[in-house]
Amino acid sequence: MMAEQANGARGRLFGLGVGPGDPELITVKALRLLKSAHVVAYFVAKGKKGNAFSIIESHLSSEQQQLPLVYPVTTEALEPPLSYEAIIADFYDTAAEVVAAHLDAGRDVAVICEGDPFFYGSYMYLHDRLANRLSPRFDAEVVPGVCSMLGGVAVLGQPLVYRNQTLSVLSGVLPEDELKRRLADADAAVVMKLGRNFDKVRRVLDELGLADRALYVERATMANQRIVPLAEVDPMASPYFSLLVVPGEKWQG
Amino acid sequence: MMAEQANGARGRLFGLGVGPGDPELITVKALRLLKSAHVVAYFVAKGKKGNAFSIIESHLSSEQQQLPLVYPVTTEALEPPLSYEAIIADFYDTAAEVVAAHLDAGRDVAVICEGDPFFYGSYMYLHDRLANRLSPRFDAEVVPGVCSMLGGVAVLGQPLVYRNQTLSVLSGVLPEDELKRRLADADAAVVMKLGRNFDKVRRVLDELGLADRALYVERATMANQRIVPLAEVDPMASPYFSLLVVPGEKWQG
Repeated sequence: MMAEQANGARGRLFGLGVGPGDPELITVKALRLLKSAHVVAYFVAKGKKGNAFSIIESHLSSEQQQLPLVYPVTTEALEPPLSYEAIIADFYDTAAEVVAAHLDAGRDVAVICEGDPFFYGSYMYLHDRLANRLSPRFDAEVVPGVCSMLGGVAVLGQPLVYRNQTLSVLSGVLPEDELKRRLADADAAVVMKLGRNFDKVRRVLDELGLADRALYVERATMANQRIVPLAEVDPMASPYFSLLVVPGEKWQG
Repeated sequence: MMAEQANGARGRLFGLGVGPGDPELITVKALRLLKSAHVVAYFVAKGKKGNAFSIIESHLSSEQQQLPLVYPVTTEALEPPLSYEAIIADFYDTAAEVVAAHLDAGRDVAVICEGDPFFYGSYMYLHDRLANRLSPRFDAEVVPGVCSMLGGVAVLGQPLVYRNQTLSVLSGVLPEDELKRRLADADAAVVMKLGRNFDKVRRVLDELGLADRALYVERATMANQRIVPLAEVDPMASPYFSLLVVPGEKWQG
């Protein structure tokens, strides 16, 4: 039985990192808090099940309420007067109030996040609205998770950063000249959000002479994971959940 | 009973991330593989128990062999003809052969790593010697873990990177001008390995006008965790396991 809080007590908000894909890469803590939450919320694209939900689905009980938060749009390229930023901000506002209503009613809400909640995760937009550090509306706890970047280097079998090397984490969405400048200056780098940006990123790596060092993996630790040599990647088929890794030079220690 | 491998079969090497400190932040997978390993190895300073060992100690059984790999030196500043690089390289060579002997004898060896094995972890030096991607001597599997950086932002309650922001992970050991240049160019940054470098790092943050945005935490998620305002940190007492975080600017989405 999942008793709700006593009269007047508010629920707690949990941002739970559930790891990069392999269901066993959830932490013991996230699993415990997931199982004890009254409501399990997750962001998801329309018509999809969602990676985070797939990771933890087998642990849910029939007593728990599932709360999908379905994105309103799937593209950032909209014609004026439509604005992706405005639409998505409204969406997060609404999602936050849906979650707040559960918390006000005394129900604990676990928001499950693929990877880590604070590392490029949508949970951050709920956290900023409901539990930001300086003026929190609700009690919240964030449980860190294994991020996709570290899931990627683990399955590649490739150390990422040695000793005092710097690591740059970059989005493939960045303009080509900025990608080039930042990659040229990094000891080690990870490029996320490849998808349609793959061709641009590979071109930059070629220009910098980094293509031989770079490694590529799709959907690391998931059942349909693929490790492909960089030269063989089909730029039209690179999924959003793919990573390029330029590992740091091996230290001789 | 932990039966060793059948005649002739070699053991497997596991690099297990055990998370940033809270024993509950180990993954389900790392915990399972930890419990089934014949030998549990870990790097540790002389006379210390070690953070990684403390995290998983309660899960060990009396049938498992514990293998501490004790560092020969505790400082990188040595007088010639002594060389830290040479001493530590010899040490890793020897440690790798100790582990290799167990593997050759058919025993599975789990090397436990605080945080993540491939994110500034000493396990990398064993992996390079015993199981590197291009010419592995032994079968190995690396289980990613929650890194200290993400443990830090979780307990600070502070999102780290939004959307297409870049993240720079820097070592406090870097020269002051390089730290300054890299911090000035990052959307978000984490500075690790503070310790005696704290004063230098705080000076750079002050010069860049970033001190107000920066957050500081010691031993995040451990029992003796401390969150301290930047201005109140005693630079003589900042431990090695402390972090400075300059979070990305909040995105309005």
